[in-house]
Amino acid sequence: MTETTTWDALSPYFPDRILPSQCPSRIVLDHVTSRWGVLVLISLVDTSLRWSELGRRVQGVSDKMLAQTLRTLQEDGLVHREVQPSAPPTVEYSLTDLGQELVQRLLPLVEWIAGNADSILGDSTDRVMR
Amino acid sequence: MTETTTWDALSPYFPDRILPSQCPSRIVLDHVTSRWGVLVLISLVDTSLRWSELGRRVQGVSDKMLAQTLRTLQEDGLVHREVQPSAPPTVEYSLTDLGQELVQRLLPLVEWIAGNADSILGDSTDRVMR
Repeated sequence: MTETTTWDALSPYFPDRILPSQCPSRIVLDHVTSRWGVLVLISLVDTSLRWSELGRRVQGVSDKMLAQTLRTLQEDGLVHREVQPSAPPTVEYSLTDLGQELVQRLLPLVEWIAGNADSILGDSTDRVMR
Repeated sequence: MTETTTWDALSPYFPDRILPSQCPSRIVLDHVTSRWGVLVLISLVDTSLRWSELGRRVQGVSDKMLAQTLRTLQEDGLVHREVQPSAPPTVEYSLTDLGQELVQRLLPLVEWIAGNADSILGDSTDRVMR
């Protein structure tokens, strides 16, 4: 790794390295890194998807949690919901420009995790199952 | 933005773009993006911290959640716990090499969120407070 890892980039936002509990950043972070937020966002990279297709790809998400996650991401302006005037009407979800920007920061993280998860968890199946 | 945002980097890990529920990646993702995981990890960028200092900087974290988060990150090999042989002994937490690699992927995400949170949430204070 040639990149340096320092606090410099964050120092304008968090003086004295305090991460305050009442802070817009933390709210958006909670939305984006919610249990399903990351998975929904990366599922929409370079494609739009119908509800049913999203639910199929993000395995394990309930209808309730998928609806709640999509609503929050829409309210944040990260996901766009479009009703197609077909019969019956269908609804498609896609990333907004802002969502695209965000996903560019999420993909390297998810890629690293996907590449390292096996070695991180090792063969301790009790941890995998908990 | 000149980067492209595509699924290509993830396709070796997730065939057919299915994100399976039983998957090591999802477990590690849950650890890293847990409510407190991100905040603890970025707090440790380029520094080691004692327990009390971590709790002071990550505002709002309870002792129980800080202990649980640190234990999980230690088990994952991302955080190192070192007892200093002073009197009384003190305990310091720092990132492992693996944790450093991960934090390099987290920082651009957190930086983007910090820079965009205000405009994402707008002035809808009901959303900020919920």
